[in-house]
Amino acid sequence: MELHMLGTGAGVPTKERNVTAMVMKGVDGKKACWMIDCGEGTQHQILHAPIKAGAITKVFITHLHGDHLYGLPGFLGSRSFQGADQPLTVYGPSGLRPYIEQSLAVSGTHLTYPLTVHEVEEGEIVDDGNWRISCLALDHRMPSFGYRFDEKEQPGRLDRERLLKDDIPSGPWLGDLKEQKTVTLPDGRVVDGRDYVTEPVKGRRIVILGDTRPMPAVADFAKEADLLVHEATFMAGERETADRFAHSTTLDAAEIARQADVSRLLLTHISARYKAADMAGYTEEARSRFPNTKTAADFGVYSLERGDR
Amino acid sequence: MELHMLGTGAGVPTKERNVTAMVMKGVDGKKACWMIDCGEGTQHQILHAPIKAGAITKVFITHLHGDHLYGLPGFLGSRSFQGADQPLTVYGPSGLRPYIEQSLAVSGTHLTYPLTVHEVEEGEIVDDGNWRISCLALDHRMPSFGYRFDEKEQPGRLDRERLLKDDIPSGPWLGDLKEQKTVTLPDGRVVDGRDYVTEPVKGRRIVILGDTRPMPAVADFAKEADLLVHEATFMAGERETADRFAHSTTLDAAEIARQADVSRLLLTHISARYKAADMAGYTEEARSRFPNTKTAADFGVYSLERGDR
Repeated sequence: MELHMLGTGAGVPTKERNVTAMVMKGVDGKKACWMIDCGEGTQHQILHAPIKAGAITKVFITHLHGDHLYGLPGFLGSRSFQGADQPLTVYGPSGLRPYIEQSLAVSGTHLTYPLTVHEVEEGEIVDDGNWRISCLALDHRMPSFGYRFDEKEQPGRLDRERLLKDDIPSGPWLGDLKEQKTVTLPDGRVVDGRDYVTEPVKGRRIVILGDTRPMPAVADFAKEADLLVHEATFMAGERETADRFAHSTTLDAAEIARQADVSRLLLTHISARYKAADMAGYTEEARSRFPNTKTAADFGVYSLERGDR
Repeated sequence: MELHMLGTGAGVPTKERNVTAMVMKGVDGKKACWMIDCGEGTQHQILHAPIKAGAITKVFITHLHGDHLYGLPGFLGSRSFQGADQPLTVYGPSGLRPYIEQSLAVSGTHLTYPLTVHEVEEGEIVDDGNWRISCLALDHRMPSFGYRFDEKEQPGRLDRERLLKDDIPSGPWLGDLKEQKTVTLPDGRVVDGRDYVTEPVKGRRIVILGDTRPMPAVADFAKEADLLVHEATFMAGERETADRFAHSTTLDAAEIARQADVSRLLLTHISARYKAADMAGYTEEARSRFPNTKTAADFGVYSLERGDR
């Protein structure tokens, strides 16, 4: 599973960074994708990324500022123009539904696929069997949410190697062993299923935030996440500017990552004032407090596997 | 004066063509710009063109399909983000105002400049002293307009060369000569102002259409235009497809240009089905009926001067 960053800038597009969008690819273990935010030009970025609009089945909008939202009507329309038939669900703050409805209606856009819009509140919003998805209200100039993606634990499976080693024959008793029961084999041996089942695999936790001031509650919400995607619009020297516009700095994000004890921190939503030459210093500021930090780039691809650095 | 094509594709962006937008640069004889249509990603195209969002003072939307409209909220917001203070007026079909109002409101966008929205009908919509701008209702799946830009005739000016040649001295009588009056000079000569004033210069006529089936009324509307920008979504072999989707072919556009007796024809709004290798044939089809035809390319710049080929 990978995170494809499609837009990593703040407020306005620049030649280097589009406005915000990112895609989690492989959420079903195969090709399904979920998108978080959809700033203007996201469908254009998708043209240049290994992502198909039709494979995106859920879109999560963190907040309704234009640089996170204005690409959505065009994305919805083009996904239809390309003949997609898979249903799509869009999640986001109150106000999202009338915006989508009017944008599609005024342009006479009729979709080829079923579209559902869920206006979200804090708490759990999705349980699809494999993932539980929750929202946290953040601290911004308008309602803004963080999304937490909790993969369910994968139960242990039969340990084929150990079965071979102990010469356990195939047969209906394997089902009981998998359920960790005690079984009497045809040859009279009594064996304990717990010896033949691998450890359950803990699910991944991925946390992706909308725009926010640094917020202590994120440390709990993102606790021990495999990846935390945190905005860092400004460098540390702009702490007051960040506060005035309800954003975070590099150091703010790193401090939250440290408190949350996450595995990895990815910084994004970077002010247009910072040029390529500034970025080494930008990342270093965060690493001084949380070493395992990367700074997102447009078209950058970041692992969503457990334990990956 | 130049026409900068920012998006020349139809329906969806491709790697080669963005969706529709174009900018007339130099409408005031200096740097002022007017934009026609504003598909998604237009503000991104502007980043790569010699155009400043703040210099655009009027936007004309031909119709409300998303590929002509969805870039407008982001353009308005970014023009503000960059600190523009010049007023902006947006013209377009009924429904444009509530769309703009809701898109700005839902995203909490407050503009730094005065914005006026005029929902247009057929007929004259602007007379700014230098230009008269008129609308024609076209034939599409939703209300779609063509815009005609008629520059006013430039009155004749004093012919300095002729004044020198005839040894006419400087003095207050020059004002009377400019008004083509008969004047008695201090040396007693009686001269006729009409001999000392250049011919008036006919204003330019530029006609830019929204999506449309070929429409006979355009031949009158665009009569003897210096430039006609006509959609040609399809090649001639797709006449029935064009009709089904209410579009024109290369030959349709060329035939209208011929009937209108325009100086130059520029084809745009080109279906994504056509690749680079198709374009020579595409243009040739139109030239077979109207030789002075060009096919628009993204970032192509086309003269808006009289007589230019």
